[in-house]
Amino acid sequence: MCAPSVVESVRRTLSRRQFVGVVATGAAVSVPVRAQQKPIRLPKGFRDVIDLTHVLSPLLPVYPGYRPIQVRPRSTIAREGYANNEVTFDEHTGTHVDAPVHFVSGAVSADRVPVDRLLAPLVVVTIAERAAKNADTLVSADDLLQWEKRYGRIPAGAFVAMHSGWDAHVRDANRFFNRDAKGTMHAPGFSEAAARLLVTERDVSGVGVDTLSLDAASAQKFVAHLTILGAGKYGVEMLTNLSRVPPAGATIIVGAPKHEGATGGPARVLALV
Amino acid sequence: MCAPSVVESVRRTLSRRQFVGVVATGAAVSVPVRAQQKPIRLPKGFRDVIDLTHVLSPLLPVYPGYRPIQVRPRSTIAREGYANNEVTFDEHTGTHVDAPVHFVSGAVSADRVPVDRLLAPLVVVTIAERAAKNADTLVSADDLLQWEKRYGRIPAGAFVAMHSGWDAHVRDANRFFNRDAKGTMHAPGFSEAAARLLVTERDVSGVGVDTLSLDAASAQKFVAHLTILGAGKYGVEMLTNLSRVPPAGATIIVGAPKHEGATGGPARVLALV
Repeated sequence: MCAPSVVESVRRTLSRRQFVGVVATGAAVSVPVRAQQKPIRLPKGFRDVIDLTHVLSPLLPVYPGYRPIQVRPRSTIAREGYANNEVTFDEHTGTHVDAPVHFVSGAVSADRVPVDRLLAPLVVVTIAERAAKNADTLVSADDLLQWEKRYGRIPAGAFVAMHSGWDAHVRDANRFFNRDAKGTMHAPGFSEAAARLLVTERDVSGVGVDTLSLDAASAQKFVAHLTILGAGKYGVEMLTNLSRVPPAGATIIVGAPKHEGATGGPARVLALV
Repeated sequence: MCAPSVVESVRRTLSRRQFVGVVATGAAVSVPVRAQQKPIRLPKGFRDVIDLTHVLSPLLPVYPGYRPIQVRPRSTIAREGYANNEVTFDEHTGTHVDAPVHFVSGAVSADRVPVDRLLAPLVVVTIAERAAKNADTLVSADDLLQWEKRYGRIPAGAFVAMHSGWDAHVRDANRFFNRDAKGTMHAPGFSEAAARLLVTERDVSGVGVDTLSLDAASAQKFVAHLTILGAGKYGVEMLTNLSRVPPAGATIIVGAPKHEGATGGPARVLALV
């Protein structure tokens, strides 16, 4: 690693030569990204990429028992010539994967989920209208069969996501956790029957929610978790932007974490639509 | 969060009902994933997904000054009913993104790279034969022009990766760091001219390497870093499996981290081939 003064001198030279607007003083100035001229070529049949991932910040709600992410600067451009943070998080925070080993001893960790399971036909089951009236509503087996009536059978290897609209509340912790007088949280999730249908009869790759839990928040037994992860499938919690994805026809890309033995972890999740 | 005993009871019930082989005693037993019956439907025109990501473990080499990842169990299935780890890393470890703000104050952080830049036509420039003989070899502007002679002009928005074969050495730190008698490291990287061609004349989305640095390891001035990040493009370092990707025609998917203000961070990186 060379001295900051050397980096600084190169920076100035390059700056003069070509980077108008890149001020390299170490001060936080705003540098506009150069506008890209041409749209990216997406895989055939797709027109856009939708980001299903929340910005991971200490302000994002976390499930009780977990701690928010911490980001600590360990080096800065002014001091060392380059910026680096040390990042600490509990695995089950932010938009994140639940690997089977989160609930089942000896089961598959996130780094070992077969890579072809991370791209999947994306099935979006919307219960947002119901959820707005009843926070305890569940995705039922009948919801899945109704979806199939309109769009055809859920394909093997699909990723099935609950769109409850709950992600709209992340900036309002009271509304998001939605605790009753006894402190019990209320938010939608998957019913046991729906979870069982997906893993035993449809052989999905994974199941996702835009809430903190595959199970309804008031559930005390984690039956959806145990059914889905117990069958070797993965979950993704705290998805966002599902309202921008069609019910059928999109492809999800789950950028699952790959640290060794991960019981899960923050993931970049994209949808090709 | 309910008591482990309740979870355990549900686990046993579910286990009897449907999950032969899922032993829920909290002991680490091996649970086979049920074989998937049908291959996943990939986007049209693609036949496979290649994982360009190293398993992130404390054994993976890190650039001098950074610390290896730490994974500490905070809850276990036996004790709390579910497993969770606390993970700590320096952002520039493992297969990871370098955001422009890593080297340029006020520039774009990893969470703000436009999402359509994370999918890109993947250009693989192989210098593995040369690198095997000369660790200081660089991807030159001429290497890029030779690639274009065979495969056509590098498309706008492409991701251009150096395949030097260096990822084969990650389990042998001496070979990987390749220090000379004075302690200077030697490994390939991008030349300044190649970096400048990519950002000013080809308008790429990002640039990647299968080494620890966009610059040659012996370089003291980070000119490739400053040229690429200074132009608002991102880098990806410590890629692997580039030998399994064709020189042209693949699509890269960069699962960039999305924690707020990220100067970079471990990323799941996939190639559709």
